[in-house]
Amino acid sequence: MSSVQEVNPRVRVIRDPVNLQSLAAQISQQIAQGEQKAFTKVIDLSSCDPHRTGLPPISFVRQVLSLCCYPELLKEDSFPLDVKQKTQKLLEACNGGSIGSYSSSTVGLPPIQRSVAEFLTRRDGGINSNPEDIIFSSGSQKTLAMMIHLLSREDGQTETGVLAPLPCPHTLPMLLDEVGVKLVPYRLTEERGWAVDLEELHRVLMTARRQCDPRAIYVGNPGNPTGHVQDRETIEKMIHFAASERLVLLVEEVYQDSVFGQDKEFLSYKKVLFEMGVSYSETVEMVSFHSISTATMGECGLRGGYMELINLDPAVKKILFQYPSSASILPQLAIEIMVNPPAPGDASYEKYTQEILVRAETLSQNAGRACKLLNALPGMSCQPAMGGVFLYPHLHLPAEIIEEAKMLRLSADVLYCRRLLEEEGICLGPGCENGHIDENFHIRLCVLAPPAVLEDVLTRLCSFHHRLLSGPD
Amino acid sequence: MSSVQEVNPRVRVIRDPVNLQSLAAQISQQIAQGEQKAFTKVIDLSSCDPHRTGLPPISFVRQVLSLCCYPELLKEDSFPLDVKQKTQKLLEACNGGSIGSYSSSTVGLPPIQRSVAEFLTRRDGGINSNPEDIIFSSGSQKTLAMMIHLLSREDGQTETGVLAPLPCPHTLPMLLDEVGVKLVPYRLTEERGWAVDLEELHRVLMTARRQCDPRAIYVGNPGNPTGHVQDRETIEKMIHFAASERLVLLVEEVYQDSVFGQDKEFLSYKKVLFEMGVSYSETVEMVSFHSISTATMGECGLRGGYMELINLDPAVKKILFQYPSSASILPQLAIEIMVNPPAPGDASYEKYTQEILVRAETLSQNAGRACKLLNALPGMSCQPAMGGVFLYPHLHLPAEIIEEAKMLRLSADVLYCRRLLEEEGICLGPGCENGHIDENFHIRLCVLAPPAVLEDVLTRLCSFHHRLLSGPD
Ligand SMILES: Cc1ncc(COP(=O)(O)O)c(C=O)c1O
Ligand SMILES: Cc1ncc(COP(=O)(O)O)c(C=O)c1O
Repeated sequence: MSSVQEVNPRVRVIRDPVNLQSLAAQISQQIAQGEQKAFTKVIDLSSCDPHRTGLPPISFVRQVLSLCCYPELLKEDSFPLDVKQKTQKLLEACNGGSIGSYSSSTVGLPPIQRSVAEFLTRRDGGINSNPEDIIFSSGSQKTLAMMIHLLSREDGQTETGVLAPLPCPHTLPMLLDEVGVKLVPYRLTEERGWAVDLEELHRVLMTARRQCDPRAIYVGNPGNPTGHVQDRETIEKMIHFAASERLVLLVEEVYQDSVFGQDKEFLSYKKVLFEMGVSYSETVEMVSFHSISTATMGECGLRGGYMELINLDPAVKKILFQYPSSASILPQLAIEIMVNPPAPGDASYEKYTQEILVRAETLSQNAGRACKLLNALPGMSCQPAMGGVFLYPHLHLPAEIIEEAKMLRLSADVLYCRRLLEEEGICLGPGCENGHIDENFHIRLCVLAPPAVLEDVLTRLCSFHHRLLSGPD
Repeated sequence: MSSVQEVNPRVRVIRDPVNLQSLAAQISQQIAQGEQKAFTKVIDLSSCDPHRTGLPPISFVRQVLSLCCYPELLKEDSFPLDVKQKTQKLLEACNGGSIGSYSSSTVGLPPIQRSVAEFLTRRDGGINSNPEDIIFSSGSQKTLAMMIHLLSREDGQTETGVLAPLPCPHTLPMLLDEVGVKLVPYRLTEERGWAVDLEELHRVLMTARRQCDPRAIYVGNPGNPTGHVQDRETIEKMIHFAASERLVLLVEEVYQDSVFGQDKEFLSYKKVLFEMGVSYSETVEMVSFHSISTATMGECGLRGGYMELINLDPAVKKILFQYPSSASILPQLAIEIMVNPPAPGDASYEKYTQEILVRAETLSQNAGRACKLLNALPGMSCQPAMGGVFLYPHLHLPAEIIEEAKMLRLSADVLYCRRLLEEEGICLGPGCENGHIDENFHIRLCVLAPPAVLEDVLTRLCSFHHRLLSGPD
């Protein structure tokens, strides 16, 4: 393997991300080495990593994990009773009563599967969820990759395709590259708050069928980076589309606890599916993904997620269970806490509820505040988010800047983000990472951060933007 | 994807493990439901999962992880000073000072990469290790899978092959299946304590070249499941072989801290490589794997490992860094503790040293005791282990049992293990999982367990074995 030519060609073609992160790391290092800049540190809001920017974790989660790591602490009185009880319950779920043992199977610890299934059943008003359909892995990106790997036909025949929205999550294109599956984009309608356009979906599928074998459709609800929340009618139409075209529905519902748009609520695809009657609920293949990285927990560093398999062939499921890996324990325990938090009457209930509430309010107020400021900028327009953690404003850049970018062989959104990073120490995401590779420029901004941090970012962004538009001094 | 036929053919062919584990789970469930058996619980020593059988974790490791999860505890005086200092140092290595943030890159946190490189430099008597060559992932199985994935040519041309010992670790065949790479077995010499036979290596490679494209050779040192520890001469020959045949050396050194055979010591492949002179040290492509799951730490549930890349093309390395995933934080912190444990003078030094010592003695005494007992059984012969955590005795079964197994369409080692599980509640590993699929029957037994547990297992194994050999009553 003395050269790249000898590397697995599938891996070789994983697209190189724009990688502002490595520039950000470089700048941070320069600052650490004493170099003078107009700012004292880099703030990265290009992805959702709330603890990194200083949002505190949920105390109950960390208390329980701490005790699980070192159960000797159960003997001390410094922890609330329900923290200790939860710890004991979780340790009982582990093999040998220890977080240090493998989970016996690929998919996770059976008692945690049961907890998740019970949560889903409650969430969907009694629609049954089967513990054996719950599969854990190190993050929702990983579970999604497992499913897509399963769907891909690596047999040298027609390439497998997956329909995905445009804009899509910035992590999706690389994920599909890695598995060698073709991303078939269906354009969302920006003017309608990034709603799905059913006619576009049909059109895109027809065209795609001439080039690949589209086997699944990916949906995010709430949307990333759009912040769009789908209503029942849209979800029904999507399910109907998937059913009639025999596509597997891959539904990312990682922001299910983060809907804040007025009169908006989260409706799970599964609930809608089951309310459409047995001709759907017993046939449509669907997988729903959730994660502890997202809004409420924000535990990105633990790497934990699960998926629920709906209507998958038992023989197909069996194959998933055969994957030679063993799920990590602590993230599973964190998932159990997420789906089974303190209840009224528990010692930690009030504190927990308070922390969750603060977080929800922070998110919603941040999203509103940022959207207002962005829309007040010349050459910038931003759809308000109804959920999720991102804003995705449209950039209307002056022709000189687009020209300049062309000369530098850069996309203008990348040039914009790079300058913003170099001049203000703010790292945002260029829309080309979300699939907008035409001249339809956007930037991506995570608004789940401490309000003071967001305010700082917005101030610096505004000043940069004005400077850029007013042209060279 | 309404049937298995529509699943990725690569995944479809992952071999089904013998799966005594699911039988073990079933039996455990029957016991839980009150069914009467000759035993009160199932003990599984088919793989190495020491905390599961009751070996305690290393206190310092768990204390630090506990504080990292809930840094509020830093304010209390219940922890030794060095535990708090280590926690602070580790949290500083995390983005935003929290275990809840993503590590910025695929490969891990730079300060932890530096700690590992410093450890490797010390371990190998000053031979330089570069922090940028250290890559973290969720366990050594995962890092190994990453490398093998990189080596495989998924372009429909010649299949990639990897040479691997027979017997090999029971986890290896599935791992290669998953990536679609052919396992090319080279037979170890049982009578010589499972030493490598260089002539066999050459022979096997020649034959393999007619069927596939062998691009790497896998070695485990100490060996799994053989317990063999290679001497300098063997390692030199292996390196010479890999160099002259242009094979990448994949060296699993996860039991480097578990060598107990008299006059035996662990020598890293890297150290030997560098002592062979620049014509080797600057050319031979080598990757070494380590893990926190193994002997000293035994933290299997955390899922953490790292690999060191030696002489890999920078462009190839760059591809590895592009893998779209983010390494989990806590296992990286545990790795830092493994490579940088308490030092003389630190408050926890004595306790830590004592715990490590007890563990090492348990392992070595268990291995000796078990080997003696097994060799005393009729129809069983066992090479003594010099390191690692397994024994791998040869089973000389009576013709009736082999016949019976044939009628049941089972391998006789599987029949043996299944009966042992059903009759005594003891789960050991059949040698066919380690690649012995001819009539050369073996069983695999992990000896890293509390001595009383091992004693119980051996007693029940002996009584079962005698009963089996004395024929039906
Ligand atoms: C679309 C999307 N979903 C979910 C996540 C969270 O991923 P994970 O659960 O793997 O941490 C991310 C993180 O970047 C994302 O981009
Ligand atoms: C050969 C081998 N190496 C290492 C390990 C430890 O693997 P990991 O580091 O992925 O937990 C195992 C576990 O079964 C193994 O079989």
